[in-house]
Amino acid sequence: MTTVPVSLTDVRELVDGALRAAVGRLDPRTYRVAAYHLGWTDEEGRPRKTPAGKALRPALALLSARAGLAPPESALPGAVAVELTHAFSLLHDDIMDGDRTRRHRPAAWTVFGEASAILAGDALLALAVEVLLEAPGQGSARAARALTATTRRLITGQALDMDFETRRQISVDECLAMASDKTAALLACSCSIGAVLDGAPESLSDALDAFGADLGIAFQLVDDLLGIWGDPATTGKPALSDLRSRKMSLPIVAALNADRPEAALLAELYARPDLAEDDLEQVAALVEAAGGRAWAEMEAESRIQRAAEHLVSARLPEPVRAEFLHIADFVTRRDH
Amino acid sequence: MTTVPVSLTDVRELVDGALRAAVGRLDPRTYRVAAYHLGWTDEEGRPRKTPAGKALRPALALLSARAGLAPPESALPGAVAVELTHAFSLLHDDIMDGDRTRRHRPAAWTVFGEASAILAGDALLALAVEVLLEAPGQGSARAARALTATTRRLITGQALDMDFETRRQISVDECLAMASDKTAALLACSCSIGAVLDGAPESLSDALDAFGADLGIAFQLVDDLLGIWGDPATTGKPALSDLRSRKMSLPIVAALNADRPEAALLAELYARPDLAEDDLEQVAALVEAAGGRAWAEMEAESRIQRAAEHLVSARLPEPVRAEFLHIADFVTRRDH
Repeated sequence: MTTVPVSLTDVRELVDGALRAAVGRLDPRTYRVAAYHLGWTDEEGRPRKTPAGKALRPALALLSARAGLAPPESALPGAVAVELTHAFSLLHDDIMDGDRTRRHRPAAWTVFGEASAILAGDALLALAVEVLLEAPGQGSARAARALTATTRRLITGQALDMDFETRRQISVDECLAMASDKTAALLACSCSIGAVLDGAPESLSDALDAFGADLGIAFQLVDDLLGIWGDPATTGKPALSDLRSRKMSLPIVAALNADRPEAALLAELYARPDLAEDDLEQVAALVEAAGGRAWAEMEAESRIQRAAEHLVSARLPEPVRAEFLHIADFVTRRDH
Repeated sequence: MTTVPVSLTDVRELVDGALRAAVGRLDPRTYRVAAYHLGWTDEEGRPRKTPAGKALRPALALLSARAGLAPPESALPGAVAVELTHAFSLLHDDIMDGDRTRRHRPAAWTVFGEASAILAGDALLALAVEVLLEAPGQGSARAARALTATTRRLITGQALDMDFETRRQISVDECLAMASDKTAALLACSCSIGAVLDGAPESLSDALDAFGADLGIAFQLVDDLLGIWGDPATTGKPALSDLRSRKMSLPIVAALNADRPEAALLAELYARPDLAEDDLEQVAALVEAAGGRAWAEMEAESRIQRAAEHLVSARLPEPVRAEFLHIADFVTRRDH
């Protein structure tokens, strides 16, 4: 099992208090849903010990403050805001996609009902912007503007993703555009928000944003690979889960668009309404045979390389650059 | 039929262009849902001629700029933002409450599905903040902060409203607190956002906010009266609609808490799971006999008076004060 980089565990403690303080401002009914969704409490509102999530976005946010030579704490409102935005999008996505499981537990909407889950998501979204606007310093409004623009990209990506479910033909470029909005935009925002809060020049925040955008595509590619070939014990999702739900993820779309005989066979099989559990292994084998797996692995590597190049042009302090690269490495090698 | 004040129709044209420009920035799938919900298009995306809504909040927003001696156009981003926030909350509330009709038409979620309606609401919320943060001038971040705080109050009010549905005993104070969050907060924000955008002193923006808060409670009381005794031809809702859905609106809660024999009879009847269509007239008569109707009418009048007093203390230019009062009068005398 891959280990979480040290900076990620450090961050979790630093951000946890600020995140709890922010969410603690919600009314009790909304808080209950949010606290469950964030993994802090169980269905009955009792505290849980297991830490939730990877805290990847907050780690990137704090690191981005250091990129501009500011102390990591100065980016705390940014770290909280990106994590709240991430939580909002997962909460609403689970309802929209009808996903009943999130991080090995029943999704919040299955526990509290759709209405309360919609409302809690709304609250987290509003709170994210509020926290940023309350941040001291001149960069606060600029950071809030970046976050709302990012949120709208998340929404565009989700709209495109839902549209894919009604379509047969999707190009690799369309799928990359979707991932760029739905996944990469928030990672890009996380990688630059600390610098933006600190009032860093645009040349620096743009370079960090570009790093995060490529990192984000790599992240999605790895996620998609795990969605087919990941180990259920570590991913928390059933084996072959993306195939079972007929997801149009990047390796699958790449395989479907490949100029190979396996692509046609895959398309025929994947379109069958009566695709049986036993056929899923064959679908996975066809995605691999059509080159979808190899393409996704190579594309992820190449995105990570491109991401690293943006850091070079940003002329970061060496320890900060090393930490960004360490997280990038973690993202591509993770098993969950 | 009551007529719409002149300033409200003027506003509609001024704001309409800015609102369409903002919503036009959404991706095409999300735009389709938003444009239908805003009354601009039909189910097929074809333009409609009927203007939608009362544009009450934008009118107040533009007027609030004039309160600080700024030109009304300077509050356009504020007017757009409060209308987008209002649209967001109606869109999500209809899903949460299972309301299938909105302004004489099928609610957006019944046409486009819940998932698309959730997403479109999210987009309108994010867009509202974005529009404010893009506004020129120093007041932009302060206005955005006021709007996100208001949005969280809308959410608290909706959470409380949903909680009411599971309870038998609700006090008038609780019901007023709910209306204060769910309805009055956004009207209060609308009444002050133009002044805030203009960088007006807090004493002025606070007074305008207080005016809007009392106006908002009056607005809700009138809404609740129309929900029982309104004419279906003008309200667009079936007769006695709030009784049919067992809503715990202000006149009903006041009647239930009255120290009169009719209150007990009303409570007994209202709690019946098999309340028939024929019994609704009797319920309405009991709300009236227990004093719920008279209380709501008097409370609305008294709130309007209190609202007017806040304007006196704000020392507004006389024409601006007259227009605020004109709108307040419209709110209490409207029939839909």
